[in-house]
Amino acid sequence: MTISKKQKIVYIGAGNVAFHFANTLSKHFEIIQIYSRNIDNAKFLSSKINCSYTNNISEIAKNADIYFISLKDDIIEDVLKKLNFKMPLSIHTSGSTDINILKNYSENFGVIYPLQTFSKQSELDLSEIPLFIEANNNFSLLSIKQIAENISQKTYNCSSENRQLLHIAGVFTNNFTNHLFSLSNKILKNTGYEFDVLKPLISETLSKAIKLGPDKSQTGPAIRNDKNIINKHLEILENYKDCQKMYSFVSESIIKENNGKKND
Amino acid sequence: MTISKKQKIVYIGAGNVAFHFANTLSKHFEIIQIYSRNIDNAKFLSSKINCSYTNNISEIAKNADIYFISLKDDIIEDVLKKLNFKMPLSIHTSGSTDINILKNYSENFGVIYPLQTFSKQSELDLSEIPLFIEANNNFSLLSIKQIAENISQKTYNCSSENRQLLHIAGVFTNNFTNHLFSLSNKILKNTGYEFDVLKPLISETLSKAIKLGPDKSQTGPAIRNDKNIINKHLEILENYKDCQKMYSFVSESIIKENNGKKND
Repeated sequence: MTISKKQKIVYIGAGNVAFHFANTLSKHFEIIQIYSRNIDNAKFLSSKINCSYTNNISEIAKNADIYFISLKDDIIEDVLKKLNFKMPLSIHTSGSTDINILKNYSENFGVIYPLQTFSKQSELDLSEIPLFIEANNNFSLLSIKQIAENISQKTYNCSSENRQLLHIAGVFTNNFTNHLFSLSNKILKNTGYEFDVLKPLISETLSKAIKLGPDKSQTGPAIRNDKNIINKHLEILENYKDCQKMYSFVSESIIKENNGKKND
Repeated sequence: MTISKKQKIVYIGAGNVAFHFANTLSKHFEIIQIYSRNIDNAKFLSSKINCSYTNNISEIAKNADIYFISLKDDIIEDVLKKLNFKMPLSIHTSGSTDINILKNYSENFGVIYPLQTFSKQSELDLSEIPLFIEANNNFSLLSIKQIAENISQKTYNCSSENRQLLHIAGVFTNNFTNHLFSLSNKILKNTGYEFDVLKPLISETLSKAIKLGPDKSQTGPAIRNDKNIINKHLEILENYKDCQKMYSFVSESIIKENNGKKND
């Protein structure tokens, strides 16, 4: 298949990834249909793209050239099993789902995994986000790479094994750090100050990690192994048990990882 | 004391906070001397400001109007004890040190605590960073507020208790998230990809937390309580024991905190 603007896409999924991918892809290809088991999501996304939508698997259009699948990992197979046709080229976008989940439903198939966090409420320029590509054969790889290059300038070939490691690194980098921001916010609520006072610190934290790298950016009581401050903080957190546990656990991890180093 | 450009400052300390504060203060006041027990640090900072320096406590100038103290918490008192004069106005910058540590060494004293992470290598515009102020009396408060307003446009009155909570929130927001970036980097090293591939995710993580707030920004397997993916990730992390423990601990915390909520 030579990838051209004439290619027709069906997008299976209407969640956060589907929302951003479908919007960008619609500038380069014809998206003919959105499927989601949640009819409101399907309708909302299709209205952005101006195409049809369905929440009925048996109504998924059979005449598309490319099928994108951005579903929660644990329902991908359920949906695929109910397709009563073979897809010419299918692509899933999951970080942790094996490429071969597509084997029985498509001759040519692969993965485009975006190392990014997606929310419908947050506008996103996809052109700089890294896309990690895997395919079942060279022909699929070429096609999928061409498609991916319409989304982002940064595409990388990637094995399943490395994709899973990237996904885990992404969980640490995004899900876990965001959870720490939530806990900070919880502590802050009792001071009367707004989350706003943390924003300059959040910006500088990221900016330093990017500029200097995280290893050189580490500061604070744990890397100094300052037991006085650590114990004082743990005492103050007596009324925030969950934060106290987290403080203790992460401090221990920092001390262990940085044994002997001091940046502060 | 009416704070004016004629006021003379001695800066006790030449670490990361001292470096940024002294540089900014030198634009508005006359800094006459830098003290640090580390002579190289003292020399380096004084050369930026064009003033004298010493690593000998007994040589600290007695004719200044304002003494700033940015030292590691556990050496502040040691240095103060060796001063053989009373300071007209003294200000420490620590998040977790009691204001009254200054009581015996100064009539007028207080705290300017910056909620920010400082590294000499990272340039920083201090004008937007929140400064939290505490003072021993109204006269000191007025003077310290005037001085602080030369550093930043955002100054807040703050009790010792709230300052300590802010410091802890800062540890979560900066030290702990940065440690997670380090662990991500460690996982990444085995994929052959550079830390660079995480940068767009880091930027978006911060930007979303700021725009939407951290509670609405949480995504990922833990908030979905997706046990399949969580267990798969824990299995893959078998060779990264420290990351595995962190993954398990933080996921449990997210599940507990967000019981019932799903953003992804």
